[in-house]
Amino acid sequence: MVTRPEIRLFEHGFVRLDGAMASDLSVVNSARVSFAKRRETMEESDRGLIGFLMRDRHGTPFEHNAFRFHVRCPLFVAREWFRHRIGSFNEESARYHRLEADFYVPEAADVRSQVGKPGAYTFEPAAPALAEEVRADLARQYTEAYALYERLLERGLAKELARCVLPMGTFTQFYWTVNARSLMNFLSLRAADTAQLEIRRYAEALETIFAEVMPVTYDAWLANGRVAP
Amino acid sequence: MVTRPEIRLFEHGFVRLDGAMASDLSVVNSARVSFAKRRETMEESDRGLIGFLMRDRHGTPFEHNAFRFHVRCPLFVAREWFRHRIGSFNEESARYHRLEADFYVPEAADVRSQVGKPGAYTFEPAAPALAEEVRADLARQYTEAYALYERLLERGLAKELARCVLPMGTFTQFYWTVNARSLMNFLSLRAADTAQLEIRRYAEALETIFAEVMPVTYDAWLANGRVAP
Amino acid sequence: MVTRPEIRLFEHGFVRLDGAMASDLSVVNSARVSFAKRRETMEESDRGLIGFLMRDRHGTPFEHNAFRFHVRCPLFVAREWFRHRIGSFNEESARYHRLEADFYVPEAADVRSQVGKPGAYTFEPAAPALAEEVRADLARQYTEAYALYERLLERGLAKELARCVLPMGTFTQFYWTVNARSLMNFLSLRAADTAQLEIRRYAEALETIFAEVMPVTYDAWLANGRVAP
Amino acid sequence: MVTRPEIRLFEHGFVRLDGAMASDLSVVNSARVSFAKRRETMEESDRGLIGFLMRDRHGTPFEHNAFRFHVRCPLFVAREWFRHRIGSFNEESARYHRLEADFYVPEAADVRSQVGKPGAYTFEPAAPALAEEVRADLARQYTEAYALYERLLERGLAKELARCVLPMGTFTQFYWTVNARSLMNFLSLRAADTAQLEIRRYAEALETIFAEVMPVTYDAWLANGRVAP
Repeated sequence: MVTRPEIRLFEHGFVRLDGAMASDLSVVNSARVSFAKRRETMEESDRGLIGFLMRDRHGTPFEHNAFRFHVRCPLFVAREWFRHRIGSFNEESARYHRLEADFYVPEAADVRSQVGKPGAYTFEPAAPALAEEVRADLARQYTEAYALYERLLERGLAKELARCVLPMGTFTQFYWTVNARSLMNFLSLRAADTAQLEIRRYAEALETIFAEVMPVTYDAWLANGRVAP
Repeated sequence: MVTRPEIRLFEHGFVRLDGAMASDLSVVNSARVSFAKRRETMEESDRGLIGFLMRDRHGTPFEHNAFRFHVRCPLFVAREWFRHRIGSFNEESARYHRLEADFYVPEAADVRSQVGKPGAYTFEPAAPALAEEVRADLARQYTEAYALYERLLERGLAKELARCVLPMGTFTQFYWTVNARSLMNFLSLRAADTAQLEIRRYAEALETIFAEVMPVTYDAWLANGRVAP
Repeated sequence: MVTRPEIRLFEHGFVRLDGAMASDLSVVNSARVSFAKRRETMEESDRGLIGFLMRDRHGTPFEHNAFRFHVRCPLFVAREWFRHRIGSFNEESARYHRLEADFYVPEAADVRSQVGKPGAYTFEPAAPALAEEVRADLARQYTEAYALYERLLERGLAKELARCVLPMGTFTQFYWTVNARSLMNFLSLRAADTAQLEIRRYAEALETIFAEVMPVTYDAWLANGRVAP
Repeated sequence: MVTRPEIRLFEHGFVRLDGAMASDLSVVNSARVSFAKRRETMEESDRGLIGFLMRDRHGTPFEHNAFRFHVRCPLFVAREWFRHRIGSFNEESARYHRLEADFYVPEAADVRSQVGKPGAYTFEPAAPALAEEVRADLARQYTEAYALYERLLERGLAKELARCVLPMGTFTQFYWTVNARSLMNFLSLRAADTAQLEIRRYAEALETIFAEVMPVTYDAWLANGRVAP
């Protein structure tokens, strides 16, 4: 099992590659099986083959691999993440387990306003004074919500009910197992300008790992305008 | 398009069948295609065929249909619901849209404590005085969280960030399109004793609709111990 | 249930829409739920919304519908068709049922040679004399194979074994239930110049049905260069 | 990449594990993430946890792994195999590539008749004389079909058309990447008495590999009556 150091994100989050069965060679071999051919190592010409598969939307050769990521992120990020159905999830349970008092407070530079209409929003950084106010407001609200969560648990309320008061900024964690084709689809949507900044940071972390493990595939995906096959 | 009255759940929730292409006949015909046979109407013997398919785990004939549900429920219920990957979701957006001040406060009779160990929890109703305290605590926390949400929006904070303070008890809404096989799997897990009471109520509402639209399939599923094929 | 006349293909094949829950309105409503909005009928501006969803790759609103097709086609066409995993199949069984003596012999104009290299094939019509020879050769081979199939069954051989001699040109039939998003993906690949002529004819038949049932979605897909969202 | 010796099947077939990211520990860790726990090695008590997950239908922890198999089998076996949608396939192409003259002729002991009605078939070995006749008939038909295939290709017919005459007993090859949950579902259906003998032999080969790579999970699946969670 490949285990790598965590990439830390925000104050309490991380992305970590927990295991992988992934190589550019697996793309080449699953494409070459069309011709009943197989290689033991990559050759220079295989770079062209991978580029061709990407451009011409031959997607299935990019599925014969797997990445297992261990992720810790705020609930509102996880909610977007779990919309991706081609892949597997197991998540920390707030029914069986008491969540920790870790919450998302954006760095001042990440506090932003939203300008424009649906389909064409842009974001602008908040003025420094406002950014600090917002950070303080969030922190206070989180503290109060968690204090109530604890009091409810102390009085014996079921965890699954007490979680009702926990805010969307609470951290959760999960494993996500996914193949390169589904991962490229995720990156094309979540490492994009239109994605929310917070999930974009996670997607960028995944992207660095993907680029390292399947470098030729990654280059072909970039050359294809970051469109998944 | 079949449109039905809403089944109301809790104070702010509902389940509504927004459309369906579903009949027991579709099960029969997709099974009989094995023998190049087709019927225009159900016959008495088809009841036995559907029972056989269910018992012997011939699952695919139960997939040639679709239910589109419109649902409003608390976020913590939606989070469990969206784990079901065989089906389609579109949900109210807290990035583009300001959520309403609707929150889940359990009826006094539904306030409960959790007893026992993981894998073997039981739940017991809270004493009346405690139940009322909990209800008041939740309501107060919701009010404060939403007041902050509004203040943050007034000060121009991006909706996608302001949502960080909204609690898991906030209501959301979505469409869910699903076939009978995946729906039976959902019901076997979410209309079960081991499911959280709140999603169980939603699953029970779905179950009454399913029973009406595909009555022979429903009976066969009951007779099979509520196990999906 | 919507039942339509068959579209006949080749000598023994057809495509028939056996049922549908599909409308452009379902796309609009599942997109508008983002804003907690819902309409009872399409409005002129919705055409623009559907175009926007298609262009910007918001794919999920195109999933809240279902088409159930009944198809009869040669085995080599079915083998390509069944590679599409987002959808449901039930097929005529050659284990339990004796297949009929219906085989694919191309029209003379469809007999073709293959020129060029993998990834860049072109096809050229065969000379008329060769085309007739090929047609006669195929017909004779089919007749002999089926005669052996029958003799093997008469001698009591299991159908599942006797099928070993049936050629890839034998006709099969199946139901296919699929949503518009998956159908558009199918059409983008199988109604394309790079697809084999025979499955392309089937895809073109599906396309005429799709265009009729969801005309605004169909136009938006055309305008998007036939790329599925 | 884990590469193992081929398990040979029939005269021209094989199953080979081409790569894996699979361990019982991955099941344990993806279950324990519910409680925000993680282990570096299996402990004795984890055997009980895996048994509990299997019995109580907690299926997702069995998805955080991947097996990539390389398989060579007759077309009629591949057609059943490719019905399994949770997993990835790439197959030898008869559009782009000339298939080899390898065909399935059952061993005399595997030639069988089919007795009984749909849903309740039993199979009985053919008398030795009949078995030899059948084997000779199949071999002759294959030879003739392939001779025509070659003549058609020599005369320039497109490969995608010439394949029409190839029988269902022709060998193909493919890669199949699948997780343990989907693999257990495959085994429960295809290594069963009700499965066709030929695919059953392949399933049994997969089963020996699965048992070796995830022994605790395999034992729990056996103890669960070979029902996938």
